[in-house]
Amino acid sequence: MDWSKLFEKASMYSRVIDHYIMDQLSLSPERLSNASLHIFKAGGKRLRPLITLLTARMLGGVEAESRAIPLASAIEAAHTFSLIHDDIMDGDEMRRGVPTTHVVYGEDWAILAGDLLHALSYRMIADGRERGLDGEHVYRALKVLAEAAIMISRGQAYDMMFEKTWDVGVSDYLNMVRLKTGALLEAAARIGSIAAGSGPEVERLMGEFGNYAGIAFQIRDDILGIIGDPKVTGKPIYNDLKRGKKTLLVIYTVKEAGRQEVAELIGPGAGDGDVEKAAKIIVESGALEYAEAVARAYVGRARDVLNRIPTVDNEAREILDMMLEYIIKREK
Amino acid sequence: MDWSKLFEKASMYSRVIDHYIMDQLSLSPERLSNASLHIFKAGGKRLRPLITLLTARMLGGVEAESRAIPLASAIEAAHTFSLIHDDIMDGDEMRRGVPTTHVVYGEDWAILAGDLLHALSYRMIADGRERGLDGEHVYRALKVLAEAAIMISRGQAYDMMFEKTWDVGVSDYLNMVRLKTGALLEAAARIGSIAAGSGPEVERLMGEFGNYAGIAFQIRDDILGIIGDPKVTGKPIYNDLKRGKKTLLVIYTVKEAGRQEVAELIGPGAGDGDVEKAAKIIVESGALEYAEAVARAYVGRARDVLNRIPTVDNEAREILDMMLEYIIKREK
Repeated sequence: MDWSKLFEKASMYSRVIDHYIMDQLSLSPERLSNASLHIFKAGGKRLRPLITLLTARMLGGVEAESRAIPLASAIEAAHTFSLIHDDIMDGDEMRRGVPTTHVVYGEDWAILAGDLLHALSYRMIADGRERGLDGEHVYRALKVLAEAAIMISRGQAYDMMFEKTWDVGVSDYLNMVRLKTGALLEAAARIGSIAAGSGPEVERLMGEFGNYAGIAFQIRDDILGIIGDPKVTGKPIYNDLKRGKKTLLVIYTVKEAGRQEVAELIGPGAGDGDVEKAAKIIVESGALEYAEAVARAYVGRARDVLNRIPTVDNEAREILDMMLEYIIKREK
Repeated sequence: MDWSKLFEKASMYSRVIDHYIMDQLSLSPERLSNASLHIFKAGGKRLRPLITLLTARMLGGVEAESRAIPLASAIEAAHTFSLIHDDIMDGDEMRRGVPTTHVVYGEDWAILAGDLLHALSYRMIADGRERGLDGEHVYRALKVLAEAAIMISRGQAYDMMFEKTWDVGVSDYLNMVRLKTGALLEAAARIGSIAAGSGPEVERLMGEFGNYAGIAFQIRDDILGIIGDPKVTGKPIYNDLKRGKKTLLVIYTVKEAGRQEVAELIGPGAGDGDVEKAAKIIVESGALEYAEAVARAYVGRARDVLNRIPTVDNEAREILDMMLEYIIKREK
């Protein structure tokens, strides 16, 4: 597939968003702003602000797109905050090809860097006011972001609890992922539609689009945790297995394909040989094909919703559609 | 002094605020909501929402006071978030007479509980809309809270950096405390005046009042770290000394009174005997009297500002004035 249209847009938006966020983070003490920028500067797809800006463009044209810049930056700042804190909780040591924030700066500074980014994301919502949003729209965007941040915390809590139990089915997984990953992609799309001045029904539909896309995104993440190339993904393989994460692949393998020996091979204390063996069984069990089918189904639902929404900019819709395909085919 | 008027008001407000916050925190998974409520339920003075509600009442009467309830709750939720995370960073194991959140639930859950409260505080700001604030006022309150949360992070960063250096003077200390503690009391007062529909000038003045009160509050905290009764304060004595915190007392003793031996007695690795010896020298040096005088000066400035503001409810002003006195005389 030729992704060039998607990548060109993403790279153009990235320059704007990165500039905006770095500008907000030029504050003292320098160590705090450096810690906050650490994994932000290491790269990343900037997928969430892409959704916000494309949604705004699609529903409200170039003016809405411009109004959405602080809001899209807020979404990326909130995402970065949650990555930094999740990496502490999950004990992850590499992300985007560099050591994680707590590895470089220590846990205390990583906690603080995440908190700062979390607070900054709300200030960026408020900044929407200066970009032409009225108070009412700022209020709506605020509510959407705060609700998403609450859901992200709840999702991460379930994710951590699931590490310690096998009483987790596919629907528990989907509920967890809807909170942990779906909520912020939902917020990204909703906030784009708020910037475009859309009514509540279009906002709700765009939210559905984002949530489905987010679930598909997370499932692809789970897949890359088993078959991804660390040089491409920027993080080590089999981390999820070592942690005992109940990914969709693991749940399928153990519960649907009946390969219960995987339960003994993963989790805290598992060696490299154990998780390699577990990964082999997961692949044999057909879990990859299953997870791909589920991810594809969610992308299909997102696409259906997208096609029902009246647009003023068809190119933006086309790129959002392409992004859906990218989400389930990406290698990083 | 007879504090009964202050305590009655505080206890009445507490019931409302506590109910509001607990209601927002009835969410799943239960372990997350329990961790978020842990030190909240252990007590606390609820000083910040008291400032918000008294300010709203003083400037706008009972209707403004009622409108301010979600905003006052937001301030207390933000305060609780920062306590939970600070306790991790500062390695504090007791607060309000109970083990801190990370001691009871583990660091991962304490990080998450703080994040949830942080997000909830912004949702509570948004909830102000349903209590009769318009979008414009929600926007102003949002901006104030986000700015305060940014300043709190910066203040905590300086506080941590100062632990490792003696290149800290009184003005560095005051700047750190203005951020770490002053910012949220400032936000509490500003948000009360926003709920009352006050203009920017009154909001600014109330902010000054809150900031000065916050600095005085922190200095009293430093004093209680040396002379406080753990049974009353709910936390062990000499924690600041063991940590190597550059409190106003320590800075005065070493830099102004020239008792440099204190520098060798405090900080990581200091034993109980060392910090006891240090505390004795601090008391001898006159640091307590110095710190009390500085705190009293800030309370005086706060009082001057308060007296310049036109009010519609003199009793509310009277209680705010009493609160200033309480801040520097309190034993917990």
